[in-house]
Amino acid sequence: MSDLHFQTISNLAPRIARKEISPVELLDSVLHQIQAHNDDVNAYITILEDESREAAKKAEREIAQGKYRGPLHGIPMGLKDLFYTAGIRTTAGSAILKDFVPDTDATVVRKLKDAGVILTGKLNMHEYAFGATNENPHYGPSRNPWDTARMTGGSSGGGGAAVAAGLSVATLGTDTGGSIRTPSALCGIVGLKPTFGRVSKHGVVPLSWSLDHVGPMARSVADAAVLLQAIAGFDPQDAASKNAAVDTYAPVASMDAKTLVVGVPGNYYFDGVDPQVEANVRAAIAALAAQGARVVEVSIPELALAMFAELVTISAEASAYHHDTFTKHAREYGADVRVLLEGGELLTAVQYLKAQQSRRLLQEAMLKVLSGVDVLVAPTLPFTAPSIGEGHVEISGQLKDFTMECVRFAAPCNLTGFPSLSLPVGFSSAGLPIGMQIIGKPFDEVKLLQVGALVEQVAPFEYKNPVLSKR
Amino acid sequence: MSDLHFQTISNLAPRIARKEISPVELLDSVLHQIQAHNDDVNAYITILEDESREAAKKAEREIAQGKYRGPLHGIPMGLKDLFYTAGIRTTAGSAILKDFVPDTDATVVRKLKDAGVILTGKLNMHEYAFGATNENPHYGPSRNPWDTARMTGGSSGGGGAAVAAGLSVATLGTDTGGSIRTPSALCGIVGLKPTFGRVSKHGVVPLSWSLDHVGPMARSVADAAVLLQAIAGFDPQDAASKNAAVDTYAPVASMDAKTLVVGVPGNYYFDGVDPQVEANVRAAIAALAAQGARVVEVSIPELALAMFAELVTISAEASAYHHDTFTKHAREYGADVRVLLEGGELLTAVQYLKAQQSRRLLQEAMLKVLSGVDVLVAPTLPFTAPSIGEGHVEISGQLKDFTMECVRFAAPCNLTGFPSLSLPVGFSSAGLPIGMQIIGKPFDEVKLLQVGALVEQVAPFEYKNPVLSKR
Repeated sequence: MSDLHFQTISNLAPRIARKEISPVELLDSVLHQIQAHNDDVNAYITILEDESREAAKKAEREIAQGKYRGPLHGIPMGLKDLFYTAGIRTTAGSAILKDFVPDTDATVVRKLKDAGVILTGKLNMHEYAFGATNENPHYGPSRNPWDTARMTGGSSGGGGAAVAAGLSVATLGTDTGGSIRTPSALCGIVGLKPTFGRVSKHGVVPLSWSLDHVGPMARSVADAAVLLQAIAGFDPQDAASKNAAVDTYAPVASMDAKTLVVGVPGNYYFDGVDPQVEANVRAAIAALAAQGARVVEVSIPELALAMFAELVTISAEASAYHHDTFTKHAREYGADVRVLLEGGELLTAVQYLKAQQSRRLLQEAMLKVLSGVDVLVAPTLPFTAPSIGEGHVEISGQLKDFTMECVRFAAPCNLTGFPSLSLPVGFSSAGLPIGMQIIGKPFDEVKLLQVGALVEQVAPFEYKNPVLSKR
Repeated sequence: MSDLHFQTISNLAPRIARKEISPVELLDSVLHQIQAHNDDVNAYITILEDESREAAKKAEREIAQGKYRGPLHGIPMGLKDLFYTAGIRTTAGSAILKDFVPDTDATVVRKLKDAGVILTGKLNMHEYAFGATNENPHYGPSRNPWDTARMTGGSSGGGGAAVAAGLSVATLGTDTGGSIRTPSALCGIVGLKPTFGRVSKHGVVPLSWSLDHVGPMARSVADAAVLLQAIAGFDPQDAASKNAAVDTYAPVASMDAKTLVVGVPGNYYFDGVDPQVEANVRAAIAALAAQGARVVEVSIPELALAMFAELVTISAEASAYHHDTFTKHAREYGADVRVLLEGGELLTAVQYLKAQQSRRLLQEAMLKVLSGVDVLVAPTLPFTAPSIGEGHVEISGQLKDFTMECVRFAAPCNLTGFPSLSLPVGFSSAGLPIGMQIIGKPFDEVKLLQVGALVEQVAPFEYKNPVLSKR
């Protein structure tokens, strides 16, 4: 078999445009990989074999007729099962929505289809996106392609597994407390949480409306840029959508490292981090410095407010969204989500508003620091993937709660809405991927992508694909 | 004595500019009226006799030297006691802040001072602006100049009494659930709640940050326009301030009634209204129609959500603001405010978020209706001023809660942030003023002022000043 399913969009698209590869041939390679390995990684809840073949044939015909739509034409992708897909069930990882079939596409799904994407199926996720373990009680846990006994992280864990294992060329995730960046880091791919309001959330099952973001998950920074280009832009159907000009994200322009100022947080983001993770992140920073980037240490004491603000906001808003359903169907939720929703009902309005005040203080503080640098860099997570079934993770000999540790470095960019790009920076001694995040100013995704591409180019890390057992 | 204290800014300013009237002479007239009648109406908490004389002399000198600043130069005004005034105590009507002396001016105070306004003192208000009766337990109730046994309405009740009774040529109020419009209507003056974000709230003691607005109270629509011109504009020190272009509000341009489309709500705004109030509002509408305006009936079922959304939002946000102080000093609050703050502490985050969802539904519905008309017109309040000490008001033989009835017609524009202008439309048979509100699209204050000026011109109502007993 070919390894087309492991290629990047950047490699595939020009060959599809030149008719060297047919969308049908590419799809076959991806479907074969799904058939061979979905049982290993449990990335798909729904596989659309017939529908995707139809779509691939149509793409092939269009391209043969000279109607090439652009770099996503003929690219097969699964999508997280909380994006509305017309005529295709959309479970949000829940039992409650197990038979829910929307009659419209989410705005981003429509945009991807318009760009020529072939939908291969719907991807596994933490129930209602409310959790980081991705140990879904209704559809089973997704499994990390680098070690299938380990977690993918959540909630977009099916996406992390699918893209890393060649079951989807790229995908979209949603990120409320790290749910794009966590599985991207743990599975060794690129994940971009754009600025709040940059990408439409219309037709996306919400978790926490003021923290939710939609964004790309891909095999390279260049691919994330192609996806962002396709989905960015104002949508009057999403009240949170911002009517701001869309920049040119793809192709990612190269940058001169000598003009770059990188801020490295002296507090919070390097506290309680696994030494191997810290070493690789610092090596990536050193590689930027070696190219001439100026590296400055910054301090943001207000980061101490992040976890309080994140947990109160997410719980309150999730409980508000689920309130009516939860009142009638509490027993149909998994145990972990049920407890969280019960907790959210107990929060007071004053607590919620204090969380929003904390959030504004954090936003002002981070904006001030970002005014003096181009980007901030930090670990995406303080650890590598732990084993499935363990609620805890060991960092430097200390046992810590997995979910809390997942949210800790992610939350500041959900609370502020600032963009954050996670990308792989090598592997631990156990062969598990390590992620670094690049944080930028609001609506400055261009800079994040440029710096990310530079890291890919200059940092001393191997890029490879996981080897899954033959089935 | 002269009646300068009863003149409008529009009458006074050209004469001050021509040096026919000196700011000192005008101030003397206002101070004389304060001395003669503040005990009747209890409009001032603090009177700044010496400071205002100094300022008036300075204005006189400047104007003599040809340094005339514009229509507010030399105009005496008291200001509601929640606007920070540097070096002048600012009680917010509370005992807790009875000795609080800010060291800076609120942005709007600075703007008024820059425009040449003479500060005569600080005006009475409901404690912390959290109530409509203006029966302040610490500084006594303000009293309605048309009948001093009756309420001014609150919370800007000192402002309503002062402007109506000639103790201040105009003023600013704040409006969270009608607190500019209620005392304006009950005291027979003009009150404008501008669009949310139009006027800075920096240096204004908050009640409910997402509902609070600052705006003019004056003796004519033209005067309200002059004040709005002076205070409108972006302020980076106020997170809610909107960076939108400031229009030309003053002088108010005349409009052709034949181009005007007036929406009259068929539901909500005319339910349970005193027949005399309704008759006068309908007479004003008929006068516009007689000039050629097109009058259409509109329906906004979502208005049924307004009271739930308003009460939950105001209580939750007020309790969040007061939380720390309230925990330590609950007994220093008046009984009515204390109960409201206790209630706010009990609200859940889910209730607050449901209120915000209701608010968005109302906003969308009203925006849709406003897209088909220039303005909506409705009664400001369903009644005229009741007696001080009565928590209830009788409308068509039914006893209703005064505060709830004050908030009912005001709340939609606090929740949506849309502008609303209240202006006098004659008197009841008992000689009490009746108010009508004109509601417009966001940032369309120009249209509100034009329609308001047209009503003043064409509606069949007498404009007069109250006669206070000689002391």
